[in-house]
Amino acid sequence: MVSLERPIKFEDVDAAGIVFFARFLSYAHEAMERFFAPLDGGYAGLILGRRIGLPAVRVEADYAAPVRYGEALRIETSVVHIGRRSATLRYRMIRVHDGVLSAELRHTVVTTDLVQIASVAMPEDVRALLGAHLDPEQAPVSAGRPV
Amino acid sequence: MVSLERPIKFEDVDAAGIVFFARFLSYAHEAMERFFAPLDGGYAGLILGRRIGLPAVRVEADYAAPVRYGEALRIETSVVHIGRRSATLRYRMIRVHDGVLSAELRHTVVTTDLVQIASVAMPEDVRALLGAHLDPEQAPVSAGRPV
Amino acid sequence: MVSLERPIKFEDVDAAGIVFFARFLSYAHEAMERFFAPLDGGYAGLILGRRIGLPAVRVEADYAAPVRYGEALRIETSVVHIGRRSATLRYRMIRVHDGVLSAELRHTVVTTDLVQIASVAMPEDVRALLGAHLDPEQAPVSAGRPV
Amino acid sequence: MVSLERPIKFEDVDAAGIVFFARFLSYAHEAMERFFAPLDGGYAGLILGRRIGLPAVRVEADYAAPVRYGEALRIETSVVHIGRRSATLRYRMIRVHDGVLSAELRHTVVTTDLVQIASVAMPEDVRALLGAHLDPEQAPVSAGRPV
Repeated sequence: MVSLERPIKFEDVDAAGIVFFARFLSYAHEAMERFFAPLDGGYAGLILGRRIGLPAVRVEADYAAPVRYGEALRIETSVVHIGRRSATLRYRMIRVHDGVLSAELRHTVVTTDLVQIASVAMPEDVRALLGAHLDPEQAPVSAGRPV
Repeated sequence: MVSLERPIKFEDVDAAGIVFFARFLSYAHEAMERFFAPLDGGYAGLILGRRIGLPAVRVEADYAAPVRYGEALRIETSVVHIGRRSATLRYRMIRVHDGVLSAELRHTVVTTDLVQIASVAMPEDVRALLGAHLDPEQAPVSAGRPV
Repeated sequence: MVSLERPIKFEDVDAAGIVFFARFLSYAHEAMERFFAPLDGGYAGLILGRRIGLPAVRVEADYAAPVRYGEALRIETSVVHIGRRSATLRYRMIRVHDGVLSAELRHTVVTTDLVQIASVAMPEDVRALLGAHLDPEQAPVSAGRPV
Repeated sequence: MVSLERPIKFEDVDAAGIVFFARFLSYAHEAMERFFAPLDGGYAGLILGRRIGLPAVRVEADYAAPVRYGEALRIETSVVHIGRRSATLRYRMIRVHDGVLSAELRHTVVTTDLVQIASVAMPEDVRALLGAHLDPEQAPVSAGRPV
């Protein structure tokens, strides 16, 4: 599990005064960039140097409790599934001030050649990093299981 | 079904050159605002006047094909489930230039008192509008069924 | 002068409840895209097809009155200066519901080869479109004059 | 001078492949939040607790060199002017990898009662913090002088 603490930004809230639901996917992406930072060149090196990306094919987000400006989230990233060309990451986003789970996301990505926009075999260093943080979910799992 | 056509903005793409995956939730929210426009005062009136909001409790997004700057999406919004205090909207986002489905989202919202941040019974005008566009999905539906 | 009407989006506000100051530059860019829509292929064709961009070298923004969710802005775009490789656009952003000026921006851009990231002579169709909406400001102009 | 280092996020670029010009104002706001962190409750406490905000009345941004995903900016924040109810902050945004100035912004804010949306006398703790980082610009200053 890789942990990232992130304060809520002034512009992250919406007209209802709570963090806008789409922002949690931005937070997840930041957590994924942090997760892949140990790669040579980091996530940016993967994208810009090797031209391999990890576009999403599926996201499930469960929103449990709102979070506001002035608060912060601790994002705990782990891996629940590794396939041949895909993987599913899980992000638990926890409010720092009271330990309450704000949101939990599952994010299935496919290793993709960004020039051809076609899936490619998962690079070995990407697979090794994912494997080091594998934490499969226990059966029985209801609707929403990563595929 | 309510339809909205939306060009991709210059800033919507990411460093991989395709629309960032979180933006599709922003697009879904725009489509929802359009969906609720027939309410007296529109969606803004609901939020700011009546202080009733529709925060998400769950989102499922399936990404099928990338979309780029210079292209546009047609977003078709319908309703797949109406509960006592919740509803699930479905957004099909279709590339205008070739008719290809880019993404499909399911978005479950709960009618919420924004002052108390507590669920409330669904207002009748909201229920009526949702009902006018109800298009339930056929069984058998696999993982990802709205709850 | 080219006019664009734009409702404020749910996510455009900040934790103070008014549109975040950076969003006005996003609005200006949308207005610029609309301004250049008459080009063959539009602004996207310029960027993606001809690989010529218009990056900003200077922006001045004067914020006069806040704008909120539920309101809309009418953005009036004109051109106050055309140089050899640069131009300055002016955006007056006016609240639709009461006609009050919310913000006024001056935006100096340079015609740029996006492959080399080097300035290039202004294409003739770009110059012609700018010239059609030229509305130079009157002397004496105080600090803040476009250069 | 208060310094903040900030990596460019995956979603901060635009369809030209460089950081979108409006993002620099978001970065400036983050730097301002960092600048005011020593206040009791930080910037969030000022906004949410005391209901005093610092909305912009003017921004000047000079863009000198583009910055890309995979790079980072060091933002050096200082104060060039303190008035009775306003102040002007200056942000120098420097690319970490080569020390090149990417952008320089001047940001004039007014201490504002967020309930009344009316200017108020500058709180003493705000004034003291600004004064601790005052670095007035030398005359002669050309167009673009903070007012």
